Amino acid sequence: MEIPVIRNILEANDRIAEQLRDMFRHKGILTLNVMSSPGSGKTTLLEKTLTDLRSDYTMAVIEGDVMTSNDARRVAATGAQALQINTDGGCHLDSSMVLQACNQMQLDDTDILFVENVGNLVCPAEFEVGEDSKVTILSVTEGDDKPEKYPLMFAESKVMVLNKIDLLPYVDFSLERAIKFAKQLNKEIQVFPVSARTGEGMDAWYAWLRQEVTAKREITHALSKRTTL
Amino acid sequence: MEIPVIRNILEANDRIAEQLRDMFRHKGILTLNVMSSPGSGKTTLLEKTLTDLRSDYTMAVIEGDVMTSNDARRVAATGAQALQINTDGGCHLDSSMVLQACNQMQLDDTDILFVENVGNLVCPAEFEVGEDSKVTILSVTEGDDKPEKYPLMFAESKVMVLNKIDLLPYVDFSLERAIKFAKQLNKEIQVFPVSARTGEGMDAWYAWLRQEVTAKREITHALSKRTTL
Repeated sequence: MEIPVIRNILEANDRIAEQLRDMFRHKGILTLNVMSSPGSGKTTLLEKTLTDLRSDYTMAVIEGDVMTSNDARRVAATGAQALQINTDGGCHLDSSMVLQACNQMQLDDTDILFVENVGNLVCPAEFEVGEDSKVTILSVTEGDDKPEKYPLMFAESKVMVLNKIDLLPYVDFSLERAIKFAKQLNKEIQVFPVSARTGEGMDAWYAWLRQEVTAKREITHALSKRTTL
Repeated sequence: MEIPVIRNILEANDRIAEQLRDMFRHKGILTLNVMSSPGSGKTTLLEKTLTDLRSDYTMAVIEGDVMTSNDARRVAATGAQALQINTDGGCHLDSSMVLQACNQMQLDDTDILFVENVGNLVCPAEFEVGEDSKVTILSVTEGDDKPEKYPLMFAESKVMVLNKIDLLPYVDFSLERAIKFAKQLNKEIQVFPVSARTGEGMDAWYAWLRQEVTAKREITHALSKRTTL
């Protein structure tokens, strides 16, 4: 009885995610599904990114949390458009929540849409939300074994941001080991060791974002030419 | 369609949890459901506890992880009986998994059974596993806002262990704020600030465990007298 129900939920989710993906492609919006454990620094990474790149790009954020709108307030303080989804106990965002959020936002001129998922290393990896890429953040205070212990999220992500590297001297964490485990699951994964608090390493993450925005624009441009022919 | 299915799962779970609770009561086993985000230090706290109290109590551990049996190996190295459950993608333990685990263990002389749940601040709080109490660990590197953002787990827990206090000088975390948020949800919650790595603060946690073991023995003793009358 259980398995068909779960399959139907996932199929319905994927259908709406495909609609979202179409919309983002036509509007030329790079969409990133940002995931991690609670407290890994997703919101701090976004605050810093939204501030440092605000003269170059128009960015928007959908915040997913079980409760509170603290995170939406934090990112809105940078000047970016932000919308909070409260899942009210739910452990992940899904595509219908993101579709509802998009319908309440003005996204036409947006270059990058960050979807900050509920803090959870397990469930969010199973639900597409129309993203171009999944970005998983692992902070060095969580231990270098996390890719091995929570493999799906790292296997599905294009990027692993290793955050809080300013705390490396005080914890037992081997960057090498964490990267080795992540690459065993996903040999293409790009890794950015950063401290969102001090700014260390953020330039490499920004360079990756710039390259992805450019690639997305080219796709949208090619698509618009094909539509007009 | 969805809601009844979920309700049936929770009801079935609660029935088996009640059987487990009966069994633990008759055997006089204090059972603790230990929960937290990934990387908060659940296993380190248990390793330290199993080592420091091993001359006083017989302790056993059921380890829940999505993948790997690393944690069961770590706690078994202390000499405690340990069994690993792999949920294979599942985001929490449930009572039937714990029942199966118990059937494979020798628990007759056990004083304390620790059930270390999957690292996840959301889903495990909804599934009873026959425990006397839920113990939630929050590490200071995760941020003092977590009780407010993930309220169910803190509302249901008898204890909040604030771990990694040796890192307090290097992070922005107010013990006072974290405790205030937790007590707003649950005014009875007991709070133990500790560093499982350095041992700081562990004595207060051990004192609580001793008191709970004694209380459990008294209940089991009273129950056995009533049964023989």
